[in-house]
Amino acid sequence: MSYEPIDYLPYDFANRRHIGPSPAEMEAMFEELGVSGLDQLMDQTVPENIRQAEPLEFGRPLSERELIHRMRVTAGKNKVLTSLIGQGYHGTVTPPAIQRNILENPAWYTAYTPYQPEISQGRLEALLNYQTMVSDLTGLEIANASLLDESTACAEAMTMAQRVAKSKAKAFFVDENCHPQNIGVMKTRAEPLGIEVIVGAPEELEADKVFAAIFQYPGTYGHVRDFTAEMEALHANKAIGIVAADPLSLCLLKEPGAMGADIAVGSTQRFGVPVGYGGPHAAYMACRDAYKRAMPGRIVGVSVDSHGNRAYRLALQTREQHIRREKATSNVCTAQALLAVMAGFYAVFHGPQGLRAIAQRIHRKTVRLAKGLEAAGFAVEPDAYFDTVTVDVGLLQRGVLQAAVREGINLRRVGRTKVGITLDERTRPETIEAVWHAFGLVKKDDDFSAEYNLPEGLIRESDYLQHDVFHMNRAETEMMRYMRRLADRDLALDRAMIPLGSCTMKLNSAAEMMPVSWREFSMIHPFVPADQAQGYAELIKDLSEKLCQITGYDDFSMQPNSGAQGEYAGLLTIRDWQKARGQGHRNVCLIPVNAHGTNPASAHMVDWKVVAVKCDENGSIDVEDFRAKAEKHSENLAACMITYPSTHGVFEETVKEVCQITHDHGGQVYIDGANMNAMVGLSRPGDLGGDVSHLNLHKTFCIPHGGGGPGMGPIGVKAHLVPHLPGDPQKGEGAVSAAPFGSPSLLPISWAYILMMGGEGLTQATRVAILNANYIAKRLEGAYDVLYRGSDGRVAHECILDVRPFADSAGVTVEDIAKRLIDCGFHAPTMSWPVAGTLMVEPTESETKAELDRFCDAMLAIREEIRAIEEGKIDAEANPLKFAPHTMEDLVRDWDRPYAREQGCFPPGAFRVDKYWPPVNRVDNAYGDRNLICTCPPMTDEDL
Amino acid sequence: MSYEPIDYLPYDFANRRHIGPSPAEMEAMFEELGVSGLDQLMDQTVPENIRQAEPLEFGRPLSERELIHRMRVTAGKNKVLTSLIGQGYHGTVTPPAIQRNILENPAWYTAYTPYQPEISQGRLEALLNYQTMVSDLTGLEIANASLLDESTACAEAMTMAQRVAKSKAKAFFVDENCHPQNIGVMKTRAEPLGIEVIVGAPEELEADKVFAAIFQYPGTYGHVRDFTAEMEALHANKAIGIVAADPLSLCLLKEPGAMGADIAVGSTQRFGVPVGYGGPHAAYMACRDAYKRAMPGRIVGVSVDSHGNRAYRLALQTREQHIRREKATSNVCTAQALLAVMAGFYAVFHGPQGLRAIAQRIHRKTVRLAKGLEAAGFAVEPDAYFDTVTVDVGLLQRGVLQAAVREGINLRRVGRTKVGITLDERTRPETIEAVWHAFGLVKKDDDFSAEYNLPEGLIRESDYLQHDVFHMNRAETEMMRYMRRLADRDLALDRAMIPLGSCTMKLNSAAEMMPVSWREFSMIHPFVPADQAQGYAELIKDLSEKLCQITGYDDFSMQPNSGAQGEYAGLLTIRDWQKARGQGHRNVCLIPVNAHGTNPASAHMVDWKVVAVKCDENGSIDVEDFRAKAEKHSENLAACMITYPSTHGVFEETVKEVCQITHDHGGQVYIDGANMNAMVGLSRPGDLGGDVSHLNLHKTFCIPHGGGGPGMGPIGVKAHLVPHLPGDPQKGEGAVSAAPFGSPSLLPISWAYILMMGGEGLTQATRVAILNANYIAKRLEGAYDVLYRGSDGRVAHECILDVRPFADSAGVTVEDIAKRLIDCGFHAPTMSWPVAGTLMVEPTESETKAELDRFCDAMLAIREEIRAIEEGKIDAEANPLKFAPHTMEDLVRDWDRPYAREQGCFPPGAFRVDKYWPPVNRVDNAYGDRNLICTCPPMTDEDL
Repeated sequence: MSYEPIDYLPYDFANRRHIGPSPAEMEAMFEELGVSGLDQLMDQTVPENIRQAEPLEFGRPLSERELIHRMRVTAGKNKVLTSLIGQGYHGTVTPPAIQRNILENPAWYTAYTPYQPEISQGRLEALLNYQTMVSDLTGLEIANASLLDESTACAEAMTMAQRVAKSKAKAFFVDENCHPQNIGVMKTRAEPLGIEVIVGAPEELEADKVFAAIFQYPGTYGHVRDFTAEMEALHANKAIGIVAADPLSLCLLKEPGAMGADIAVGSTQRFGVPVGYGGPHAAYMACRDAYKRAMPGRIVGVSVDSHGNRAYRLALQTREQHIRREKATSNVCTAQALLAVMAGFYAVFHGPQGLRAIAQRIHRKTVRLAKGLEAAGFAVEPDAYFDTVTVDVGLLQRGVLQAAVREGINLRRVGRTKVGITLDERTRPETIEAVWHAFGLVKKDDDFSAEYNLPEGLIRESDYLQHDVFHMNRAETEMMRYMRRLADRDLALDRAMIPLGSCTMKLNSAAEMMPVSWREFSMIHPFVPADQAQGYAELIKDLSEKLCQITGYDDFSMQPNSGAQGEYAGLLTIRDWQKARGQGHRNVCLIPVNAHGTNPASAHMVDWKVVAVKCDENGSIDVEDFRAKAEKHSENLAACMITYPSTHGVFEETVKEVCQITHDHGGQVYIDGANMNAMVGLSRPGDLGGDVSHLNLHKTFCIPHGGGGPGMGPIGVKAHLVPHLPGDPQKGEGAVSAAPFGSPSLLPISWAYILMMGGEGLTQATRVAILNANYIAKRLEGAYDVLYRGSDGRVAHECILDVRPFADSAGVTVEDIAKRLIDCGFHAPTMSWPVAGTLMVEPTESETKAELDRFCDAMLAIREEIRAIEEGKIDAEANPLKFAPHTMEDLVRDWDRPYAREQGCFPPGAFRVDKYWPPVNRVDNAYGDRNLICTCPPMTDEDL
Repeated sequence: MSYEPIDYLPYDFANRRHIGPSPAEMEAMFEELGVSGLDQLMDQTVPENIRQAEPLEFGRPLSERELIHRMRVTAGKNKVLTSLIGQGYHGTVTPPAIQRNILENPAWYTAYTPYQPEISQGRLEALLNYQTMVSDLTGLEIANASLLDESTACAEAMTMAQRVAKSKAKAFFVDENCHPQNIGVMKTRAEPLGIEVIVGAPEELEADKVFAAIFQYPGTYGHVRDFTAEMEALHANKAIGIVAADPLSLCLLKEPGAMGADIAVGSTQRFGVPVGYGGPHAAYMACRDAYKRAMPGRIVGVSVDSHGNRAYRLALQTREQHIRREKATSNVCTAQALLAVMAGFYAVFHGPQGLRAIAQRIHRKTVRLAKGLEAAGFAVEPDAYFDTVTVDVGLLQRGVLQAAVREGINLRRVGRTKVGITLDERTRPETIEAVWHAFGLVKKDDDFSAEYNLPEGLIRESDYLQHDVFHMNRAETEMMRYMRRLADRDLALDRAMIPLGSCTMKLNSAAEMMPVSWREFSMIHPFVPADQAQGYAELIKDLSEKLCQITGYDDFSMQPNSGAQGEYAGLLTIRDWQKARGQGHRNVCLIPVNAHGTNPASAHMVDWKVVAVKCDENGSIDVEDFRAKAEKHSENLAACMITYPSTHGVFEETVKEVCQITHDHGGQVYIDGANMNAMVGLSRPGDLGGDVSHLNLHKTFCIPHGGGGPGMGPIGVKAHLVPHLPGDPQKGEGAVSAAPFGSPSLLPISWAYILMMGGEGLTQATRVAILNANYIAKRLEGAYDVLYRGSDGRVAHECILDVRPFADSAGVTVEDIAKRLIDCGFHAPTMSWPVAGTLMVEPTESETKAELDRFCDAMLAIREEIRAIEEGKIDAEANPLKFAPHTMEDLVRDWDRPYAREQGCFPPGAFRVDKYWPPVNRVDNAYGDRNLICTCPPMTDEDL
């Protein structure tokens, strides 16, 4: 050893943190692939003509310590005031045990959507708790497992109502007391679909003129009205009644179901999820049983496994866009699972009595506040309210608002003369006194006794949250163990690779995650004055600039809070541009047959006609078919939607040609950014000819999947489209989400990733993601056919394994293999997409060679098991594949199978000591759909 | 349902958080016990004459939200500057993944000391990594699993050297370059033991006059010296050589082992553990193999399980105080396991190259800094250094220090004319420029090239951290999974009750834990100017006042950083007081035979003579024997040490009499606070006659056990003893710990607990702790004899189950039962203490009735298994008790046992789906001690 300084990047540099294979491992991988290094592999993989000209350059990457410092400086530019703005966003107290054990626990936040139910029983139970809570509070039979935000939930309710209403009317009535952003997003959604939106006071409803109506409860200005009469009138006209309800208010108030509502929607944000400058939080939707098959979004249901034991899984999946494409109930894909889990646990922690006590305290404080103002002669409306009052202060409006800010409080500006005040769980006596002070009053909180001011007829009479899970002792010890037990039932990234093609399950590093919990990011109301959110402004500006550099676009909108939402927003942007140039009639969208299901579903949402384009035998777009279709629809071509690299995991060399054809026929090019993890630093969609792309920040840019959300799907556009980006939700013009920047409290994650990687690091991540995929493809050669390769025989960042031949040769299905992988300790690759009967594998750059080898060993062993069936050495019915996954219960029972316990439970790949055991055997999906139960089933002895 | 406000405390009140049984459960428990309620049970349990007169009153308890707010306000009064004070405390970067997945993860922090190795393999492996790191860096064969802090480690090294040195000299040489607090604590320790401490320059060592010598490396003022010659001189005189070394410096510098050192000690704080105003961090100790049996503290070693598989466990336990009592190698009990785990993972994350790169960067920066100062004419010493320089600034000292503070930097005041500067991992170019600026210099960092300035002969030549575990890829994905796998192997409070008598394994709530991670608490150097630690001052003052009210004492010292340290500090306090009143000759300490092993070990440390007092058949102090011994030793009686309620779990009615006798004979009363969880709000040691007590804040006051530390053992004293409390470590007078307030960054936890519980809540916790213990005693009646009850037949907060009869009746030992409980999913109760062959059960208030029942069901089922052996229905050798614990490997193997797999693996109590599996079968302790291996063994195939 010597003085010589060593050239070594320690852990605290992103290259070491995010890049799985070590330098030595990479050398071994190069050898296996027969390449000299990454450069040569890239030359073989990424066509010359799509390479970007200049490398990414963002300056020196930050260490973790520097990142945290930088974040702290930026966060410090946000001012945390007490926001009593309301309008659907409320102060709340996240129980620290939930923050620590859910929000900050990788076992929860790195999980994937529970499509594989056997390894998802924990979060499925948590989501079932959430659904039960929603169903109970709203008084409606069926609830889904969350939607993106209250405003999109309103829009989803509107289109759902249109699907189920027997009324043939074309108009939709919107209560003027709805939150402005709800009205805005519903208008945006209605316009392309030709729905006429009538905004008015509830009493102005003409039920015979509409297919449905929505009412806000309590209203945005505080009114608490009974909509029973409106519901009756709607039903008399075969129309649908929707209530957008604050779930906390429903602890005291008559529930929508009792009014006769058919659908209820709302936000569960105030159930322990910080406002976060607008998101993410879980919106809910509940409906009558009769309409369940028309409901958008994922629904958790109860079923049984192959041994007849209770098991949870996603119900009624045939409604969803990955199966129904443009005929789906909506394009909702990513939802807000992690936040729904938090809200559900909030209800479990507090129980019905606790929630009621919280609601009562808020209401009593509101009464006290209002009495104080009334005693001083202020005009307070409405007469009865839950947590919100509006005060007419005439010319004093500006002064009161400013005085409140000086007191550390944000009030709501309502019209030109009024001020809105909404109290919440965090409101303290001093808060009320400070509000009075802003109104020029010096009073003590206890000058006024706590009374009630709810309308007599609107007191809730029914019970809720009667299930045992809401009646635990609520000792933290018990709650902590419950959260741990559920987490342990699931398999997430913190235990094993999740090689899901197209989903990019990569590292969500702890340094990136930490700022999300900081109050300077989490406790900012989305509608605060701009000077209180300078930190967010700086972050969003810098992140947007960097994303522009990465993608070759000219500007970004952060509003879409999921990938599908991004697609929809992008198409709206194109549509608006086409209209602006007098081409509003253009309504044809070319979409290759192998597109993500969300693509046609999104096109459907802007009322475009989807024209499918063929793919060649290599999975690439059939350019001649594309050209023919474009020519045929030249007059009406609005856009094409393509994915790059293709959903088959190939860098198509014809992409620029496809873009050119589209432009030549007056269309715009939408490039789906789902596969951006194969492009960053190598190729830019904006350079290829794209006009719009969304980025799944929860794929390429490290936002965790959270077990099915949150996500972020910002869109980048070329300069000509900038004026047509989504509008301000509060102003209601063309907004797609409730909040101006979607779910901004997630943005520190993506920003941190970029800052810590730097341009070179980001590019290296892309290169290694491609290396890892090619390594798997190479190791599995001979055992599995890899479909679709580029001209050099390479794949991009994922590869498709063809397992269809085994159906004939051995009676083994893709599902058998997926379930058998659970025995090996892996989440299955993407099943049957984009090609039925295949597996699509995407390892990402985060996995080490050791983990890739563990996976390949498992896959090769499975191939040998298949071979044994093919050769008649194992029974075609009684074999480890058909009985997969194996549970501990299998092991402890009598064993009458023609293979050993050892082989069944510990196939290659499976850890010995650290074995993951699925809590249930293979789940019967059909049974659950036939016997739909979407709330918590009664406890039985087996729960003990 | 109605308007009526409900009288209901929701989750966010401590009563619901900390109290396990629900009101309904409590009713059922009252019925089982035949009492009307808690009042009656308390009347039966807690003698009238020891009850406190007034209830605790701390005002309204805070909700979690209020607590966090209060903490934030207090934390805000600490000022976070960049401290370059050094002196053993350094800035460091905690990898966020370690912070999240270890420090903030209940699976790690709620674990107990790994006495039950089968359920502790994860943290044992992590600690073995730590030991391997220490052994490698110091170049010595054996390392322990941490000590409390560097200063106490120095003192332990001194007494260890005295035990092993063949030299008969009585003096101990201390390098004057040792950190002042090290010198102070060693002097404190030496004085009662009659060791003469000679402080001097290394060249003044007279090796023939001492039994050992200690040198600091690098020295506190920066000197880097080779002590090879000193070691040779010591060895020539049969004396022992000790080096106190900074482990990070050893990445560049010749290791102590290569110099010939026999023992090395130091702090691993800068391995990713924040300074925290002084603690907690893990000190290390390493020694030559020859001295391993004289080493204090816990040592993790490698052994095998009953199937011959590798298994870790604590080695050489017979050295420890719970077995050896006053003949133990030290009184060290709680150490710093959690912090050692963090430091070990820091090394795993960075690997040898990463650590070396960090050390090199720090050194190069120091050279740059020094060159800048020298170029401006400042006198910089020493000539060669690692990270610390001292600058003589003459009369400018005050000005430079103040200017530095204005730059946001704390420098060290050295003597009257010098300033010390120590750089660290966090030092940035701007930091160096700011230091220059404080010296009046305007320079840019890159004015000076980075060179090396280490003495030629002191460059490290040997490799270190060669084991595979330090050569992972260091991709965070891989590290995260490794941390998760280790955590999953262990059973901690986040999965099950840990009913350890005398250890009080209660809830460590998330709200209490959160502030520990805040930089305002974690990033304060212990020797900052007082005005920078006003938040800590406020916290310590208020916490002390509340603890005084709880205990009936007049003041508290927070310095002792473990319970055993508290005992020692308390006895020193008494001793000092006796000396001050001219009774310095008093050296007899009466200790009942059932005392904690630390009691006699602590008495031994102040060189007192332990006189054992008998207990009666009820486990209580035999008052007549006590009186007789007190009378006999009346002239020399220094103190008595008693535990209340007794270690047998009984409230002795004679306690006041015992105290009176002691006082009558001139002694002082030390009441061990280990069982304080049975007293808070009901009885105060200060009222009973106690003069001093320590409190285990990690038992009663919610600091987590961390798998064997950290802990805090502050002492409360009556007014007359206040002047004799431990002194300032920097001044060296009577200090017992390195830092003035021990491990202050833990104190927010205890303060939070008290603030959120309030007086009534704390009292309720005590009452429910007693209820829970009595409930268990009642439910197990008939199956197990409960030893030692109070006069009403009740126990206090714990109960002793007599399982000795089963040895004869069925050949079943206490260990068999303990291991069988692992199959049921429980950590065993305390084994064979205070009575050999028994189990002591302490459920604490945090456990629900449901969990108590699960435990009782398991214990009753075990009793039936014993009965089956007694009745000859099961084989006495081949039965579930003897084969316990059962592993998954047992299940998958061929099964040739005379009982079913089901019975073996799923006894009553065990969860089905959420079963905890120990990773190894029963561990062979003797094998491991015979074949001692205390560093990571080579990887084998079985690790895959």
